[in-house]
Amino acid sequence: MPLNIPDIQLPRVVIVGAGFGGFQLARSLPSSSFQTVLIDRYNFHQFQPLYYQVAMAGLEPSSICFPLRRSFQKKKNTFVRVAEVEGFDPGEKKLFTDQGAIRYDILVLATGARTNYFNRQDIEQAVIPMKSISESLYLRNRILEDLEKAVVAPRDSDLSPYLDIAIVGGGPTGVELAGALAEMKKHIVPKDYPDLDNDRMHIHLIEGRDRLLAAMRPESSDRTLTDLRSMGVEVHLNSRVHSIETNQILLTDGRIIRAGKVIWAAGITGALVKGVPETSLSPGGRIRVDDYCRVQGLQQVFAIGDLACMETSEYPKGHPQMAPAAMQQARWLASYLRSSTDRPFRFTDKGQMATIGRNKAVTEFAGLRLAGFPAWAIWLLVHIYYLIGVRNRLIVLINWIWSYLFYDQNLRLIIRPRLPPSGKG
Amino acid sequence: MPLNIPDIQLPRVVIVGAGFGGFQLARSLPSSSFQTVLIDRYNFHQFQPLYYQVAMAGLEPSSICFPLRRSFQKKKNTFVRVAEVEGFDPGEKKLFTDQGAIRYDILVLATGARTNYFNRQDIEQAVIPMKSISESLYLRNRILEDLEKAVVAPRDSDLSPYLDIAIVGGGPTGVELAGALAEMKKHIVPKDYPDLDNDRMHIHLIEGRDRLLAAMRPESSDRTLTDLRSMGVEVHLNSRVHSIETNQILLTDGRIIRAGKVIWAAGITGALVKGVPETSLSPGGRIRVDDYCRVQGLQQVFAIGDLACMETSEYPKGHPQMAPAAMQQARWLASYLRSSTDRPFRFTDKGQMATIGRNKAVTEFAGLRLAGFPAWAIWLLVHIYYLIGVRNRLIVLINWIWSYLFYDQNLRLIIRPRLPPSGKG
Repeated sequence: MPLNIPDIQLPRVVIVGAGFGGFQLARSLPSSSFQTVLIDRYNFHQFQPLYYQVAMAGLEPSSICFPLRRSFQKKKNTFVRVAEVEGFDPGEKKLFTDQGAIRYDILVLATGARTNYFNRQDIEQAVIPMKSISESLYLRNRILEDLEKAVVAPRDSDLSPYLDIAIVGGGPTGVELAGALAEMKKHIVPKDYPDLDNDRMHIHLIEGRDRLLAAMRPESSDRTLTDLRSMGVEVHLNSRVHSIETNQILLTDGRIIRAGKVIWAAGITGALVKGVPETSLSPGGRIRVDDYCRVQGLQQVFAIGDLACMETSEYPKGHPQMAPAAMQQARWLASYLRSSTDRPFRFTDKGQMATIGRNKAVTEFAGLRLAGFPAWAIWLLVHIYYLIGVRNRLIVLINWIWSYLFYDQNLRLIIRPRLPPSGKG
Repeated sequence: MPLNIPDIQLPRVVIVGAGFGGFQLARSLPSSSFQTVLIDRYNFHQFQPLYYQVAMAGLEPSSICFPLRRSFQKKKNTFVRVAEVEGFDPGEKKLFTDQGAIRYDILVLATGARTNYFNRQDIEQAVIPMKSISESLYLRNRILEDLEKAVVAPRDSDLSPYLDIAIVGGGPTGVELAGALAEMKKHIVPKDYPDLDNDRMHIHLIEGRDRLLAAMRPESSDRTLTDLRSMGVEVHLNSRVHSIETNQILLTDGRIIRAGKVIWAAGITGALVKGVPETSLSPGGRIRVDDYCRVQGLQQVFAIGDLACMETSEYPKGHPQMAPAAMQQARWLASYLRSSTDRPFRFTDKGQMATIGRNKAVTEFAGLRLAGFPAWAIWLLVHIYYLIGVRNRLIVLINWIWSYLFYDQNLRLIIRPRLPPSGKG
């Protein structure tokens, strides 16, 4: 069964994934020269850097997602298809999806990254990941439900299974989550749950290396550590997870950390698509591409963004897996495909940043290192700027101003869509 | 196991349900005279009149819900508990929940109404109800997913199962949904799905009586019928459902209406709590109360809102099941309980209204009947006014202005929270 797409007398570019890379590429490809087909399993683009605020009930999913059809309403020869990609055949130039197969002239893989459990199925079963909107909502509901359970638990019972949270991984996601949880503990819990003693809530951040935010400079790491500790986060450096048991984590050095919820932010790996030769994979599970984003060993197949690993002298392990690299590759690839450049891709590093909490962040731009309020203000501006959609920017801004002024999030609702009729909602 | 509530030397009022009645009562009871316990299965108050806009992707759930704990942060001696109520024992003065039992001095039942399937399990299995946020989100996701399926369906296939929608019940919910669907068909589908012919989408509204909005005056019914038909809704009056089969409805007169989705807005009945004697139930499934909202045959048990049926000479079948009646009863009951009134409850009818579409509504206030733009403007103002929370009002207003100006909703996202780890999200 073929996927229903009109035939047009233009080369057909099929893009798999509507993240920063795929979305930007579909926007940049001129509709006069290409038929563009953008395929994603969801009908929206997701702004991943703010997942953690969805999990913390600070933002609604709709504020950081943007409907794909809306974006391409006015773009001719661009077709959005919601489908699950199952693989491709580079010989036949065909992509297979659960909605049917589709022929391509040029295939661009932009499926990004997925959570890396390092082949530990026991860990995968025991932790909460944070690599999608659905997972963020799940975490939000779990936190809120556990607080309600703690309130009604019999007096003198052990509340650690409900209240204690551990985050594994001290990268930006782990740091931002830990900071946001610390603020929830300090500002929200005492007001909303006066019956609960918020000192009984513990937030642990577990990092294998000797510093947080290892991709940034040591000064930024130190500042982050100081800030998080001052906010009450229990940071455990040089600590690795041995195993996760019911309501506790066993570290490799024998220590035990008690927590009912374990959030896994310890690593990512490429979200691979079947059809890429094993020999083209990097040690980190990404797809090796040359300087032109071409997948090693294949014809007319490109990979961009977190999925792609372009090993250069400057970045021997590939570019950082962040939005700017994906967007730059997308814009470069659009130029290259319409033959307006024949120079290889070059990444312009715009720096790094992470927010820690209210008035607290660290940023590094072009040799300039900032911390505290100025860094925090820059973080806010950059994120508002890169968000898709005027309405989204407005709503996010209102929510941020609101919670800044009133130390409050308004979205502490435990909502689940009803199950299909047979499941009785 | 007892539900964990501190013991205070004050009479304990236990309120079941945080809808318009229960929520208002908990706000109105003075914390100096009572210990108030508000129990709901959700941790938020829901603004039911706007469910249909959530289903139509015009508003987010969070814009029309309000966290209960937030509302009662500053109210002493008021305790929110999220629990599923299982029944009560009027002899022992105990309420049973899935989180434990709780003693009461005064019990107020305010559980509202639930969808009435008139004991037809086959219908319950085949239709989509609209009496909760979860059900509204389910409907939204179904509509959006079916549009995506229609786009990828093989050419010349039958799209009726994906595109045709029938609503059973021509009350306010049915009318508002039909109008909103007609606007989606006209303004959104052609822009978002240029590949689809929107003439192939049919919206049916099925009503058993000879007019829509039977609780309003015949002129309002006529105007509503004219407006809906001009918007392309296929209204079937004097039509009753015999049975619902796959992708079609069989009417009692033998006619067949094709539709892949059937929304059931044909009636409500009391959401009963176990412990009320059978003899205290009204024919409509509500609980009979006297002029003082006291449940017939029980001591210190009150019922208010949609659940309660107070049969008076003016309202022989009980008050209309609408927010104003519930809120007035709640305020009256608060006065009565603190002994500041001993006069029986009297309902002040503030009128009725229903919105049909852009610049189209019907309202009836104190003998004054309005239609068209003025009615629509009043509808908007009243709903903004009764919404709980400044932030919610602001966000709803922005969304309404936005969609009014741009003929657009921004929330067309198919999002489901991840399932728990064992279920693999």
